[in-house]
Amino acid sequence: MKASRFFIGTLKEAPADAEVVSHKLMLRAGMIRRVAGGIYSYLPVGLRSIRKVEAIVREEMNRAGALELLMPAVQPAELWQESGRWEQYGPELLRFKDRKQSEFVIGPTHEEVVTDIARHQIKSYRQMPVNFYQIQTKFRDEIRPRFGVMRGREFTMKDAYSFDKDQAGLQESYRKMFDAYVRIFTRIGLEFRAVNADSGSIGGNRSQEFHVIAATGEDDIAYCPASDFAANVEAAEALPLYAERAAPREAMQKTATPGKAKCEAVAELLNIPLERTIKSIILATDNEGAEPTIWLLMLRGDHDLNEVKVGKLPGLAGFRFATEAEIVEWFGTPPGYLGPIGTKKPVKVVADRTVANMSDFVVGSNEVDYHTTGVNWGRDLPEPEVADIRNVRPGDPSPDGRGQIEICRGIEVGHVFQLGTKYSEAMGATFLDENGKPQPMVMGCYGIGITRILGAAIEQNFDERGIIWPEAIAPFEIVLCPMGYDRSESVRAETDKLYAQLSEAGIDVILDDRGERPGVMFADWELIGVPHRIVIGDRGLKEGKVEYQGRRDTEPTLVALDQAAGFAAEKIRAALAR
Amino acid sequence: MKASRFFIGTLKEAPADAEVVSHKLMLRAGMIRRVAGGIYSYLPVGLRSIRKVEAIVREEMNRAGALELLMPAVQPAELWQESGRWEQYGPELLRFKDRKQSEFVIGPTHEEVVTDIARHQIKSYRQMPVNFYQIQTKFRDEIRPRFGVMRGREFTMKDAYSFDKDQAGLQESYRKMFDAYVRIFTRIGLEFRAVNADSGSIGGNRSQEFHVIAATGEDDIAYCPASDFAANVEAAEALPLYAERAAPREAMQKTATPGKAKCEAVAELLNIPLERTIKSIILATDNEGAEPTIWLLMLRGDHDLNEVKVGKLPGLAGFRFATEAEIVEWFGTPPGYLGPIGTKKPVKVVADRTVANMSDFVVGSNEVDYHTTGVNWGRDLPEPEVADIRNVRPGDPSPDGRGQIEICRGIEVGHVFQLGTKYSEAMGATFLDENGKPQPMVMGCYGIGITRILGAAIEQNFDERGIIWPEAIAPFEIVLCPMGYDRSESVRAETDKLYAQLSEAGIDVILDDRGERPGVMFADWELIGVPHRIVIGDRGLKEGKVEYQGRRDTEPTLVALDQAAGFAAEKIRAALAR
Repeated sequence: MKASRFFIGTLKEAPADAEVVSHKLMLRAGMIRRVAGGIYSYLPVGLRSIRKVEAIVREEMNRAGALELLMPAVQPAELWQESGRWEQYGPELLRFKDRKQSEFVIGPTHEEVVTDIARHQIKSYRQMPVNFYQIQTKFRDEIRPRFGVMRGREFTMKDAYSFDKDQAGLQESYRKMFDAYVRIFTRIGLEFRAVNADSGSIGGNRSQEFHVIAATGEDDIAYCPASDFAANVEAAEALPLYAERAAPREAMQKTATPGKAKCEAVAELLNIPLERTIKSIILATDNEGAEPTIWLLMLRGDHDLNEVKVGKLPGLAGFRFATEAEIVEWFGTPPGYLGPIGTKKPVKVVADRTVANMSDFVVGSNEVDYHTTGVNWGRDLPEPEVADIRNVRPGDPSPDGRGQIEICRGIEVGHVFQLGTKYSEAMGATFLDENGKPQPMVMGCYGIGITRILGAAIEQNFDERGIIWPEAIAPFEIVLCPMGYDRSESVRAETDKLYAQLSEAGIDVILDDRGERPGVMFADWELIGVPHRIVIGDRGLKEGKVEYQGRRDTEPTLVALDQAAGFAAEKIRAALAR
Repeated sequence: MKASRFFIGTLKEAPADAEVVSHKLMLRAGMIRRVAGGIYSYLPVGLRSIRKVEAIVREEMNRAGALELLMPAVQPAELWQESGRWEQYGPELLRFKDRKQSEFVIGPTHEEVVTDIARHQIKSYRQMPVNFYQIQTKFRDEIRPRFGVMRGREFTMKDAYSFDKDQAGLQESYRKMFDAYVRIFTRIGLEFRAVNADSGSIGGNRSQEFHVIAATGEDDIAYCPASDFAANVEAAEALPLYAERAAPREAMQKTATPGKAKCEAVAELLNIPLERTIKSIILATDNEGAEPTIWLLMLRGDHDLNEVKVGKLPGLAGFRFATEAEIVEWFGTPPGYLGPIGTKKPVKVVADRTVANMSDFVVGSNEVDYHTTGVNWGRDLPEPEVADIRNVRPGDPSPDGRGQIEICRGIEVGHVFQLGTKYSEAMGATFLDENGKPQPMVMGCYGIGITRILGAAIEQNFDERGIIWPEAIAPFEIVLCPMGYDRSESVRAETDKLYAQLSEAGIDVILDDRGERPGVMFADWELIGVPHRIVIGDRGLKEGKVEYQGRRDTEPTLVALDQAAGFAAEKIRAALAR
């Protein structure tokens, strides 16, 4: 491609509302243009990267035996009513009426449509396993679209749906997709991690997320460098930090802690480690036609509540935080010095696994400005319900028992999920098994955020000058920057020759023949993030040399003109093989 | 591809609501599945054909220098308000509100979005010409979606938009697109015709449609076999059928024609040719705050009114047919025996070009059961306004003066259009010209109905057994049908060898290893429309032969096994080169 025939739309400044690096750089590099909140056009340079991502995804999906189809963006409400999601989904499901007042949605996902296809097309166990995928436009009416393509409203996804005759089949289909995802993100050239999205101890169908590791990621990922354990902090199992409970050594005692409502302040005042204090968190669950149930959750002073885990506990689905009025009614005191001992009305106590193994701890006295020290289970208060209700922290033991947890930030770019029979049962997608008996199909679903990958790749690879694309998804692999293409015959001739050599070698090369000054040329291509560059100038040509520079290199390398194409090709090949 | 790993979803019967052949066959061949009225999923076999169409379109667009980008399906109302189309468009523009009550549309086309991109990205004449295209999902809320993918609501289009600094540039951009379209439809293997969509005599910007010729087409195309003239009948210029007006020979006379309101009946009663009679058509145009203007349009008895042409005449934009009450008020008689002579109130008379050169003709007398014969211009009624207001008919002289018109039916699959500055002026898309003066960009737009091409190709190529795909867009180029793949080792071995040979030759081959009976196999692939087939069986193999059969052949050809791959490859190559 020659730049004069292409469209370069770099900008000096990013709009002020671009919050994250990838958003700013994609706008400045002329990859995207905003059409409305969370809705973008992909300009030619941006679309080239998208097409490369799509090609890799398509190749690996086909290799894994998945079959491409294409479902519509606009879906009838009836299908969503059948699955029950018409009611379950919130306002991010974009609903509208057509000219005949029939209700439709713009699909944020396609479980309903694909299940409808399956129930009509799959009659027998002999037709399975089958895995349908598409690369398609989705719409999710985010309340606050932001971060450019990372949390947009209209976006491109690859979504796949597997249909199996039994759970064993699903496991195999799931494994194939998992392996394909590993190949996809490896080929794209991203540092990524597959993490458990769902805690095994709490149950539920298996589900894993693929995260691109980046300091600016939205999600906290717990992982163990000594093993392959990795899980979203939302889901990572927290083990008790004490193997067993020590015997009580202190007597229980009420202590004045005036103005010290927080655990940190109490520990400082009493001169004890924060790890001896207990945080009481008051939740409520509503009971129809009766007063709510009030829960007291106990966490070690330095630990944080994990609301996802709490929501999965028996009786706590749909919990809310208790109101101040409820706290006064149940504890006889306003929030601040609460504890499990001597409540005014009975509450349900749930202790975190770590708290359950503590002795001689400190809790609020249910009286303003007082705490109780030397509290012990069994002696001072009954044995509690025990559950994993906290977030893991760096240094915690890994749940697989093979080392300590570390935490990094990640951007979710893929998700594999064992759906089971949820949709096939709701929508009557059955097949005849070996005995001629109808059975619900066993489903899995597998998503990759195609447009999101661009943002994630940039968050992981940029510097102050711009984007640094992994070779596999760079809009161009290499740029040729001639110094005086219009003025110097030898520069033009050698540049054209190099361009022809690289093109013939199957390398995606762009020749900057726009006649811009070197500074403008370099700045544009560094901003756009082309990973390799060769500068051709009269001075170098006199010595038979050109200047090669990788996007991360601090200095150029002089390369003999007749070896330049091979040199660059080898650099690109090596990078792609990484 | 092996059929056991693919998904064949052929059906015995098409749903009753499928009206046209292509719709029935696409459903029966398992290419599409209906999701809602005018909304389809493309199953794997259907998507393969779509992808082949897309690849050809993309290749030729790139070759013509157009740059691919991707605009969103969801577009903000503001852009449509700027262009004025928010008000102009009818209910086929799907409008909705997002969760914040902002108004959006699902785009049926992208002039507004691309003009918004251009006005922000193009600053100087040096950045033009540029032509942006996309292959993307559109939505048009048709009141009566039908004919499967031919008149769907959600569909895939290639749309391109060129930006030039002046009209000469637009001509050149337009010519490039026209040439690309000719290559695209030629490569796809369709019999097509480029037709004028807009009559040159009436004016307006240049616009041409590409029609696939098919008996079931929705449009009538007038063309001249002796020249390259072709135009939509809506737009084809009708010349006067008489070079000049003959001198009057009859006296004007009122004649009883009881019960003969129609021209045919009058001609029969009076024993004169239908060509001597005149049809009077009464139209009205409304005037604000005043009574409407009533128009009497005169056509030869055997001619039909062309409403598109009429709508472009001065004063007749937005015309309607007059009501019965208006006819009684202006003509003093109910509809049936109307004519230009002796109206009750003055009407504006427009005569078709042919009528203007007639003598001694017959018109209604504005009295029930009476006609007036021997009517002549100038003598019996004033010289009329003359205009081209009729449809051309077979046998008419071609407007280019080089032969006679014939008429065929076509399916519109492409459209090229010189927009000029309509959108750039409405939306302020200006650039600085050579003198630093702001000028509106000069635009063209160019569409191809990607999904529609599938339907059109089938309407042109089918028989009672199913589809007959042109090789370039067939889901597979050739199918191997082994007789007893599971039972006969030699059949399996030779089939596998042939499969490998064809695959290596770059041929898109499917091997039917499903173990179906021959009848089922043949029926499936004939329905799906794979254009070439090789049958491998033990009987033939004994003689070292296999059976080749083209989809249009009535008999198979015996081919030596070792030449079979080459034989088939040559057939496919020859077909693609056609």
